[in-house]
Amino acid sequence: MKGFLDKDFLLATDSAKKLYHEYACKMPIIDYHCHLSCRDIVEDKKYDNVAEVWLSHDHYKWRLMRNNGVDEYYITGGASDREKWYKWVESLQRAVGNPLYHWCHMELKNYFGYDKPLTMESADEAWDFCNQKLASGLGVRKMIEMSRVEFIGTTDDPIDDLTWHKKLAADNTLKVKVAPTFRPDKALNIDNKDWKQYMSELSRVSGVDIVDLASLQNALSKRMDGFDELGCRSSDHGLDRVPDAEGNLITAQRAFCKAMSGEDVDAHETDAYKSHLLTWCAEQYADRDWVMQLHCNCVRNPNTVAYESIGADSGFDCILPSVDGVALQRLLDRLESKKVLPKTILYSLDSNDDAFLEVLAGSFQSSKARGKIQHGAAWWFNDHKQGITRQLSSLASVGVLGNFVGMLTDSRSFLSFVRHEYFRRILCDFVGDLVERGEYPCDISYLGKIVEDICYYNAKKYFGIGEGI
Amino acid sequence: MKGFLDKDFLLATDSAKKLYHEYACKMPIIDYHCHLSCRDIVEDKKYDNVAEVWLSHDHYKWRLMRNNGVDEYYITGGASDREKWYKWVESLQRAVGNPLYHWCHMELKNYFGYDKPLTMESADEAWDFCNQKLASGLGVRKMIEMSRVEFIGTTDDPIDDLTWHKKLAADNTLKVKVAPTFRPDKALNIDNKDWKQYMSELSRVSGVDIVDLASLQNALSKRMDGFDELGCRSSDHGLDRVPDAEGNLITAQRAFCKAMSGEDVDAHETDAYKSHLLTWCAEQYADRDWVMQLHCNCVRNPNTVAYESIGADSGFDCILPSVDGVALQRLLDRLESKKVLPKTILYSLDSNDDAFLEVLAGSFQSSKARGKIQHGAAWWFNDHKQGITRQLSSLASVGVLGNFVGMLTDSRSFLSFVRHEYFRRILCDFVGDLVERGEYPCDISYLGKIVEDICYYNAKKYFGIGEGI
Amino acid sequence: MKGFLDKDFLLATDSAKKLYHEYACKMPIIDYHCHLSCRDIVEDKKYDNVAEVWLSHDHYKWRLMRNNGVDEYYITGGASDREKWYKWVESLQRAVGNPLYHWCHMELKNYFGYDKPLTMESADEAWDFCNQKLASGLGVRKMIEMSRVEFIGTTDDPIDDLTWHKKLAADNTLKVKVAPTFRPDKALNIDNKDWKQYMSELSRVSGVDIVDLASLQNALSKRMDGFDELGCRSSDHGLDRVPDAEGNLITAQRAFCKAMSGEDVDAHETDAYKSHLLTWCAEQYADRDWVMQLHCNCVRNPNTVAYESIGADSGFDCILPSVDGVALQRLLDRLESKKVLPKTILYSLDSNDDAFLEVLAGSFQSSKARGKIQHGAAWWFNDHKQGITRQLSSLASVGVLGNFVGMLTDSRSFLSFVRHEYFRRILCDFVGDLVERGEYPCDISYLGKIVEDICYYNAKKYFGIGEGI
Repeated sequence: MKGFLDKDFLLATDSAKKLYHEYACKMPIIDYHCHLSCRDIVEDKKYDNVAEVWLSHDHYKWRLMRNNGVDEYYITGGASDREKWYKWVESLQRAVGNPLYHWCHMELKNYFGYDKPLTMESADEAWDFCNQKLASGLGVRKMIEMSRVEFIGTTDDPIDDLTWHKKLAADNTLKVKVAPTFRPDKALNIDNKDWKQYMSELSRVSGVDIVDLASLQNALSKRMDGFDELGCRSSDHGLDRVPDAEGNLITAQRAFCKAMSGEDVDAHETDAYKSHLLTWCAEQYADRDWVMQLHCNCVRNPNTVAYESIGADSGFDCILPSVDGVALQRLLDRLESKKVLPKTILYSLDSNDDAFLEVLAGSFQSSKARGKIQHGAAWWFNDHKQGITRQLSSLASVGVLGNFVGMLTDSRSFLSFVRHEYFRRILCDFVGDLVERGEYPCDISYLGKIVEDICYYNAKKYFGIGEGI
Repeated sequence: MKGFLDKDFLLATDSAKKLYHEYACKMPIIDYHCHLSCRDIVEDKKYDNVAEVWLSHDHYKWRLMRNNGVDEYYITGGASDREKWYKWVESLQRAVGNPLYHWCHMELKNYFGYDKPLTMESADEAWDFCNQKLASGLGVRKMIEMSRVEFIGTTDDPIDDLTWHKKLAADNTLKVKVAPTFRPDKALNIDNKDWKQYMSELSRVSGVDIVDLASLQNALSKRMDGFDELGCRSSDHGLDRVPDAEGNLITAQRAFCKAMSGEDVDAHETDAYKSHLLTWCAEQYADRDWVMQLHCNCVRNPNTVAYESIGADSGFDCILPSVDGVALQRLLDRLESKKVLPKTILYSLDSNDDAFLEVLAGSFQSSKARGKIQHGAAWWFNDHKQGITRQLSSLASVGVLGNFVGMLTDSRSFLSFVRHEYFRRILCDFVGDLVERGEYPCDISYLGKIVEDICYYNAKKYFGIGEGI
Repeated sequence: MKGFLDKDFLLATDSAKKLYHEYACKMPIIDYHCHLSCRDIVEDKKYDNVAEVWLSHDHYKWRLMRNNGVDEYYITGGASDREKWYKWVESLQRAVGNPLYHWCHMELKNYFGYDKPLTMESADEAWDFCNQKLASGLGVRKMIEMSRVEFIGTTDDPIDDLTWHKKLAADNTLKVKVAPTFRPDKALNIDNKDWKQYMSELSRVSGVDIVDLASLQNALSKRMDGFDELGCRSSDHGLDRVPDAEGNLITAQRAFCKAMSGEDVDAHETDAYKSHLLTWCAEQYADRDWVMQLHCNCVRNPNTVAYESIGADSGFDCILPSVDGVALQRLLDRLESKKVLPKTILYSLDSNDDAFLEVLAGSFQSSKARGKIQHGAAWWFNDHKQGITRQLSSLASVGVLGNFVGMLTDSRSFLSFVRHEYFRRILCDFVGDLVERGEYPCDISYLGKIVEDICYYNAKKYFGIGEGI
């Protein structure tokens, strides 16, 4: 029996251990997709206690507590941090086999040096132990430094003036490169009631008076330039459903005019507008050599009561069972036909799409990059051992594993870099297992290079990090 | 090599063995969802031979025989029980890896004490051996007693007057609690040609003259009261497709009137009626603290020729590939918005829905119960080792395993309680494997408690068994 | 650690090894579904070099190279065979865990006697080694002979006059039986721009003047007779989507007339035409005791740019995520109701359909054949270890494993018969694992017979090979 969370955690074979300890674990981290606060980095945020670190923003943990029947008062409500801590520990302990169980214990071990299981019995000890570390200076910058992160891609709205990114760019004391990621969902979501208000904010930030599609595009283009100057290498689109209209300009313009004058925009017009603007964005990304990330199949705010009382992004979002895969195929086909298909990473919250996305990516490759179109890493509802293994297995089976750009955290927490370690261990276990079973020659130095590529070099090259930043 | 079906069947690790033998196997059985005949219990039904026990009602076995090319004459036709027995044994032997192979051998071992593999060579010996046991008094009550069952939830129609449940309630000689489960599918299925006839039967049984929606609801409410008095803790809805209309009262009423006067009801009206009535039912369940079970994605009677010659529920029903997951989300959202969402268990015949249902459940939790909304156990086409493991893995990965209410049989056979043993062994193997791999601390006494919860205590608490029954 | 590709490749347990070496590997091959060139067999085609063997037709390999960022010049373009070879070797080496990696090395070992890993270091050596073998007479007939193939079912269009099949039938020097397979997709695809031209070619080849549905059916019937005379046992339909209309004759006829006069045929008419003709075809197959193969869920030519520059069937086709499963159920139901449902094999490119297809098949069985309706083998995007294991596991869990008709190659390469070995090893590993875990009795001689059935006898009987050919 292996010890819990020992040095060979998740590594079942000798080949896996070699691949991890001699190759994977030595690689720096490129976290190209997360939701970390740039301001927290600038200000080197400190924390009062471990509950604040873990529970103040992390909707993955909130969801787990709700699954355990914890009252909202102890989750996002007015309970004290210590009360929340007990509720969290009790919930976590019951979550046998959940990745949060692993991540939390990895975080306790790696960042706090606390290596006992978290139980109701050890809850007080761990509380004191961790808080002492926090009091002795374990803040955001120290966390980043301990993680050996080389690049952080935050997620930013075009109307963000990037003040904090600018401050950080001017700060020579930090070794990590922090770049914004362009996420223009609110500009595309013309069916959202706040869209018109959003347009006026975008006008203000960009300095462009937005009166038609052309000026909207001009405004977005100016913001892209601003992002680009601060090292942006990527965009991110949350396409809960993929727009599927030929980018009909006249209908898109009509949608724009109607929405600006407060009229209702119908489904057909919405689709035309989104398709048109997404196509235009893709072209811009291709011009700038940015990566386009598309993540699909999410039901946002499925629980109206919870949404109205607690708000968005608080742990209620749900997988949207995939039904419109062909829309994604048609989108890529349209972009390729217009010669504006940028490097693209496809994600779906629905892991049933794994093989489809892998194959679809393979239908649109090009010699401009190894694995120009990628089926992205398993995250959000899929970042557990089974999900990560399934994605790797699917990728290996119908694609070229060696070209994968690897893991991201999608996290709001500065401790979540352990998910890269989690992924790397699972990757090495997967590859090591192939070797032990005689399914790949035991050429550890070659496979070590492949592992290094997946953990680090592929992403570095794919996102162009270090080139011109 | 492990021996076939030895005492450590399905238990690969020492941790798994400990969890099963020291914890799981000691728990009584709560079979909250099955199709056992209450009358058979009252009358303590006896059997002439093992073919009658196994083959007279079990459409799982009929399906397997058809897969083996057996003529209907030997399945539901006029062949003798002994002829059917040979056909069954031959089919079973070829069904390598099928759960029926395991269940049958577990039943032979546990109830008959016959522990050799069933083959064409042993078919006669087993026939004689088992029939002797049956002749010496192995009937329904003995089977229940040997199974250590504490609670049986049968499946009952609102028009059932529950005569047999009443008789059983008056019988002090039986230790198991048998309660009806409220399954009002026929009241909802206004698109069924027998609906109008059903209404008149419901009028008769309830003593309410059904002339509009209000009186229909009154009739159903009276039946719920009748069920409740006999210990009913749960309802069951077979939603082949989930109704997805806002519960528009006027349209629902129009549908009712048209159907009552023999007019055709269109798809829109049908949907409105079903949505309205389902919402009303949910409210009633919440009021009574009943659990609402929704099982989705079934194609009923896909083979018209077979349906017309053999009838419903005879082994032809099929998985309906899931396409309307969002309808289920909207249903839960509407119920939550109206504050009438009861404790709910979600099932889908399509195992591709596993992660979706797990996540969806997590979007509607409440502090009123641990795991108030559950993704239910793997049954019907999913109750094999792979399916059960997959459901457990999905649940563990995105939910809280410790709160799962565990297994059900859905069976018409009094020997099918072995499926609880089957499930428990797979559960212990799953948890034990996590321990052996260092993915959960080796705290067997804590994990033993979790296993006991999943096998017994969670269901007992969730269904409120023993509280007020 | 097992050696790479040793004699027990993919066989983890002793039971698996016994089942493979003592049973499976001794069986001849029946490759009932492939795309081999009959002409190449007649002419005993020889090859200049190993790149020609591997890379001149194989779109699986082309796709892998594109996934690796190789320029089309080195794939289907004007580069020399040796340049293509290097690009291929480099791509293959990175494809850790891909079945092409396994198949290529099995082919090198089995046909060329080269048993070292293919790397950029060994690329020249392997090139010389293999080319020497090719120069010394390793051609098509030798490849077939080395493979111990008993039956090859090619894929042929009704307008193919089967000249080469006739020549082969007259050739006594070849031991293998080569039969055409009837693939009338172009006759069904009335929505294809080339359909009208196709009708005139079909008129010419059949000698029937096609002026209406009746004469079209007459023409097809004559071609079926021609196929039948040459030993055809099976048809093949690529139903990217399953037609789902009641076979309305009037609408189907209108569609025919409009298409013949160059008018547009709408979606409703197209569906009626396809449904009608497919139903008619099925009846013909049933009359001739042919097997009907239906493979569903493919997006053809998803990348328009690639299609226009490189053409169809060149490695761009994609999985179509399954959405119309019920259409397939309805098709089978209609055929069964008309009493014209032939032996049928169902395939889907989307492996999420595995359980659905398995269950659907079980809903339409008959005593006319063991496993009359089959869920077919895992191929095209699913023919990797995970996909094959998943299909076997699904089949075993909800069907009768022993009745499976086993593997096909779907290949254009005479070396692809190794995929049968690949499948057989995985099959034996799957069954052996059940034995080692105590999930089936250790009755190797019985299980050996089951394995032989799946590898050979079931297909021989199901397709009626050797009976009247």
